[in-house]
Parts: sequence; structure tokens; C-alpha cells
Amino acid sequence: LTGLPQHFQRLVDELARLPSIGGKSALRLAYHIISANPEQGQALAAAVEQAIANISFCSRCFFFAEAEQCVVCNNPSRDQRTLCVVEKPMDVLAVERMGEYRGLYHVLHGVWAPLRGISPDKLKLKELTQRIEQDQVLEVILATSSTVEGDATASYIARMLAQHGVSVSRLAQGMPKGGELEYADDLTLSRALSGRNRLSI
Amino acid sequence: LTGLPQHFQRLVDELARLPSIGGKSALRLAYHIISANPEQGQALAAAVEQAIANISFCSRCFFFAEAEQCVVCNNPSRDQRTLCVVEKPMDVLAVERMGEYRGLYHVLHGVWAPLRGISPDKLKLKELTQRIEQDQVLEVILATSSTVEGDATASYIARMLAQHGVSVSRLAQGMPKGGELEYADDLTLSRALSGRNRLSI
Repeated sequence: LTGLPQHFQRLVDELARLPSIGGKSALRLAYHIISANPEQGQALAAAVEQAIANISFCSRCFFFAEAEQCVVCNNPSRDQRTLCVVEKPMDVLAVERMGEYRGLYHVLHGVWAPLRGISPDKLKLKELTQRIEQDQVLEVILATSSTVEGDATASYIARMLAQHGVSVSRLAQGMPKGGELEYADDLTLSRALSGRNRLSI
Repeated sequence: LTGLPQHFQRLVDELARLPSIGGKSALRLAYHIISANPEQGQALAAAVEQAIANISFCSRCFFFAEAEQCVVCNNPSRDQRTLCVVEKPMDVLAVERMGEYRGLYHVLHGVWAPLRGISPDKLKLKELTQRIEQDQVLEVILATSSTVEGDATASYIARMLAQHGVSVSRLAQGMPKGGELEYADDLTLSRALSGRNRLSI
């Protein structure tokens, strides 16, 4: 016995190509797919195929779209002159969940991460400047993650947009709501201190 | 915006039905599948479909098989009167990797786990006793895991086979090779002590 049946090995290999799925997880998932009722596996295969066939990214903001443009860009009641710049489509959902933002989005599809070989030209930055010019955008809110890479990306974009006559802001960094001082990490505390707000009395 | 495009949500749901994939992982995997080149997603869907269509379990030992019987059962040079009883098909691979075992297998497809609602009748036990009778098996090696559930399953099978006139053994439990005493957990050490072997001098 040299190993697994060929079709099983192939399934394991394909699963292991997915991010954060290692060899052992891929084996366990493949075993589950084979052992569960065949309808479940067929539904998974069909869902993958249909998602690939039907979902693409909005030609304007690069959020998920089932048409040329996404539901946000297609909504005329949204403020067309304000853009919220995020890293991933899922970040759009987080901002929408809050229910307070009325502008449009721009999904970068990544962060500037030189250590992982991701340079700024891999992000949707050329498209961002084009949009800002064409749509006469007034305000850009940089909502990349509060990580080293997210901060670097935000600074890069702020510099890039300096001569475009647009107001550029960054999400506030500080103590999370409900966070106890005792358990705050050093960097969060340092940001909260340097960004302290004067209270009017 | 109420949420994700329908086809994306369906893919997330199907991925989240897989074991050990939570909601957030499913989102991340679905995003990867949509963002990667379409060939990769199509290859995954095809691999799932072909595995379901082509792989089943050996009618004799319940290991993976692409025909009626698996490659182990089909090998006439294997000792037909010795069975190694394991929990999962992957366990067969572990024993085969060692390269010392020449008998056949019997895959239970589970362990007796009353706390998780898995009763002995969900395991391939009826098939085990039938095989032992029909094939005049002489020895059964219980190679279930060294966990509480694996031990309970082994005891259950040993009792079940008591009147079948077959030699029943269990994998030795003790210190793993290379394991330092200082780092051994209590249960392993207790098993190693109670199962100590007299050295001949």
C-alpha cells in the first residue's frame, strides 16, 4: 500500500491549497466529505462552481458584486463624494453592520506588506486615484486595519492623495469600548495616550 | 445593504458545515475561492465531485476503496487471519507507514462515545463479528486511540469477542519513544508503570 486512492489524494491536495488548511486538516475534511451523505458534498461542489461563475467584484469599488456594480454603488441615496477605503470585502460588511456610514467604499484587496512581498501596485490604488478624479470625491476615510501593515498602507495612501485636494482621515485608534486599562497592550495604550482628546468642562 | 451576495452566502454556509470550520474561517475560505484564479476553484469543485463519485469504502474492511474491495484486502500476500481494528481510514495509513504489519484491517468508522451520542451500533461491529466467523480469523489487534473513548471501545470489543475463540490484543501503552519522564503526563506515566516489563539480566 503506497497511499491513498488517487481521487482522495487529489481532494486532499486541493483542500490543502486553501489558506490556513494544513495537510492534517485537509485529510480530515476530505474524509468528512467522503463519509457524509453525498448530497452535502455535491452541494459544496455546486456552491463553489456557482460562486465562481456568478460573483465578481464591483467595477467601481471592488466589493462583491453579482452585476457590473455592487449594491452599495448602485444605491443612489448613498453619498457619492465620500469613500471609505478598506482592505477586504468583509470589512465593508463590518462598517455596514454599524449602520451609520452613508458613503461609498473602495476595497484595496490587500495591504502593503513588504515582508510578505505585497507591494502597493498589487492594491487597487490606481483605481482609487482615478475614482477620486472622475467622481469629484471630497473625503476619503482610511479604514485599513490598526496593524503595522494597515498603518503603513494608510500613510502611503495619505501621501499619494496629498496633491488631489481631498480631505483624508484615518479611523481613530485608542482604547476599545469596554476595555480595561489593566489589560490593554502597550501599543494600544500608547496610541490612546498620544491621541487623547481635551474634555470641555 | 443587508449582507453578502446570495451565491457567496451559500458558499460560506456550505463551507461552515465542514467540521472545524467556523463562520469566520468559512468567510475567509470563500473569499479566497472567489479571489483566486477560477481554475483553482473549479479544480476544487471537480475534486469534491469526483471523490464522491469514485471513492467508497471497502465492502470487507471499510477502508477507502475505488473498487468493491480495497488494495489491502485485494492483496493475497497479506495474512488473511489477522485483523487490526482501527477507528478511521487514516489510521490504516499510519500503521502501513510503519511497514511491519502484514495482516488485514477493520475500520470501525468511529469510537464508542456516549457523551457525544455515538453508541456501539453506529460502528462497524456487526460486520467485524461476521468477518471473524466467515474468514476464520485467529487474531484481532485493537488499535483504537489511547484516549478514554478509544480504551472504552477496545474493552467493549474485547468483551464482545470473548466467546468467538479469537486471540484479542491491544496496542501497548506507555512512554512514547524519545519521551522525557519530566514531561510525561500523569496518565501516560501511570500506564507505563502498570505495564512495566521485567528485564532479563
